[in-house]
Amino acid sequence: VKSEFEWINRIRAASRRFSPDLVLGIGDDAAILKRPQGKWWLVTTDALFENVHFKVEYTPGKLLGHKSLAVNLSDIAAMGGTPRFFLLAIAVPDGFDEAYLDEFVTGMLETADKHTTVLVGGNVSASQSGLAITITVIGDCSAHMAARRDGAMPGDSVYVTGELGLSAIGLKLLQDGRRLSEELPPELERPILAHLAPQPRVAVGRFLAENRIAGSMIDLSDGLSSDLFHICEESGVGAVITAERLPVFDAGTVAQADLQQEALHGGEDYELLFTVRSEKVAELEAAQAQFPNVTFTCIGRITEETRRLYLEAGGRCELLEPKGYDHFKGR
Amino acid sequence: VKSEFEWINRIRAASRRFSPDLVLGIGDDAAILKRPQGKWWLVTTDALFENVHFKVEYTPGKLLGHKSLAVNLSDIAAMGGTPRFFLLAIAVPDGFDEAYLDEFVTGMLETADKHTTVLVGGNVSASQSGLAITITVIGDCSAHMAARRDGAMPGDSVYVTGELGLSAIGLKLLQDGRRLSEELPPELERPILAHLAPQPRVAVGRFLAENRIAGSMIDLSDGLSSDLFHICEESGVGAVITAERLPVFDAGTVAQADLQQEALHGGEDYELLFTVRSEKVAELEAAQAQFPNVTFTCIGRITEETRRLYLEAGGRCELLEPKGYDHFKGR
Repeated sequence: VKSEFEWINRIRAASRRFSPDLVLGIGDDAAILKRPQGKWWLVTTDALFENVHFKVEYTPGKLLGHKSLAVNLSDIAAMGGTPRFFLLAIAVPDGFDEAYLDEFVTGMLETADKHTTVLVGGNVSASQSGLAITITVIGDCSAHMAARRDGAMPGDSVYVTGELGLSAIGLKLLQDGRRLSEELPPELERPILAHLAPQPRVAVGRFLAENRIAGSMIDLSDGLSSDLFHICEESGVGAVITAERLPVFDAGTVAQADLQQEALHGGEDYELLFTVRSEKVAELEAAQAQFPNVTFTCIGRITEETRRLYLEAGGRCELLEPKGYDHFKGR
Repeated sequence: VKSEFEWINRIRAASRRFSPDLVLGIGDDAAILKRPQGKWWLVTTDALFENVHFKVEYTPGKLLGHKSLAVNLSDIAAMGGTPRFFLLAIAVPDGFDEAYLDEFVTGMLETADKHTTVLVGGNVSASQSGLAITITVIGDCSAHMAARRDGAMPGDSVYVTGELGLSAIGLKLLQDGRRLSEELPPELERPILAHLAPQPRVAVGRFLAENRIAGSMIDLSDGLSSDLFHICEESGVGAVITAERLPVFDAGTVAQADLQQEALHGGEDYELLFTVRSEKVAELEAAQAQFPNVTFTCIGRITEETRRLYLEAGGRCELLEPKGYDHFKGR
């Protein structure tokens, strides 16, 4: 099998069609559907499969319900939109724990309520292997105001919200046998929750798009190097990242991990990665006060060298390969 | 695990929310989203899983691509809408046949083009078991003109398009080892194609809704008895079906099967089942000429006895249990 991205590109090329209502199709975090009255619809779909994306043994049902929706809300956030509606397609193995399913629904709907997003349909079927969840979210944004991946320009600053690598470290802790429980040392809770219960940056994303601060934007699902590469590919630019500036999670003695590597390549942080024109940087820095719980960090800049990423560390500059997750190939 | 419908009802009850843009959420073939400018959006999602809904050994890739989209288009047809956009979430096992996937995409896009429906997004991931396909379709209809399940009234005539039981017989033939090939006796091709390549009744559905001929409508996916029960449940009515009127597929010597049972309970015909007020029956019968390839057959009438189905045969009337497919329990 070809790589995931080759296959997506192939489908993308083969499916390109003109439609008066379609502003942007495959290739971004969500599709944009044009409608009159000053609003555009955003639609996105994402799936979580048992033993591929999560294991039941370390994932409480409520958090799985939350995360299944949250990863989709994060895509809407990365467009600068507001989630409105969603559909759930779920496949359940024979004999699956009913209480777990109830918890799943509860967690999903709690998160939906938090974002005033309404479940409007779906599909249930049997599964021959594990639990399989596919959610489609429909959101909207002001016309012409969606933050796409293709708007980065040489000279732009590259920003990221929050900390990087937290989710990857949380996953390692879970794989090492750590669990959310009373016995868990308190300092381990944050990375584990970052992995099991990521918080989509909906309000921040909307703010950055509506004020035209983010020239381009994406959410960090595959990992910084891969997701930055997506922006560079779509925008026809390159980027240089400064290692010392990365908001690396300070794990202390929490985990045996190369924290910088996790920050560069670890997936599923669901933070926002975005580019800012120089004339907009002051506006962004001023906006930091409005979002006291979400740090904006400048980690580098956009360059002219198409599809090339570099990492600057200790004054030296080396090529940075996009090494995020490929669902067909593993790491 | 509870039955599929119990679980759906539970999710439905737990997820009921007010939203000014939402006309109809869970419980019909598609959700209805209200938008100004005289159009409503319709969104629906449906999934096909390998070895649950299909087997690769008897399903050509192109036909699987077609069917994956067609079953969703059928839901839009059953609302009287026009499909516009769709999203594809697909999970692929390691080492899966690449040529088959290419055929899948080709078939899917051919059907999309036939219905001028545009793929606008999606998601690809690995699968630990078989191929898993979830498609979400977004369509629209004229405001207030969607044909819902809850509009049947006592005295209405019950109509169905096409023939019944064809798909179920096709599935039996496939399970008996018959395959689409040059050696296949020509009379077996029609039932097998009905199963592998169902034709969504989009034009008919739209006609019936826009002319307010269908007071209620559903597509036949679970089987006549189950789908009629869905209409009766949502409308608070019952129905009597006349066995002699059923457009049973005349299999001749084709298959050892109880053809009437397949017509009553066999799934996946993707024909339309709809109810017609007495004052609209003449208009429907006159419209038959416009659709020479799709027969409209009156098979019974709606009654006052809530949630009760009866089968009239040879002058006798007996209770008809909804026995369609429950994805959690099998037949």
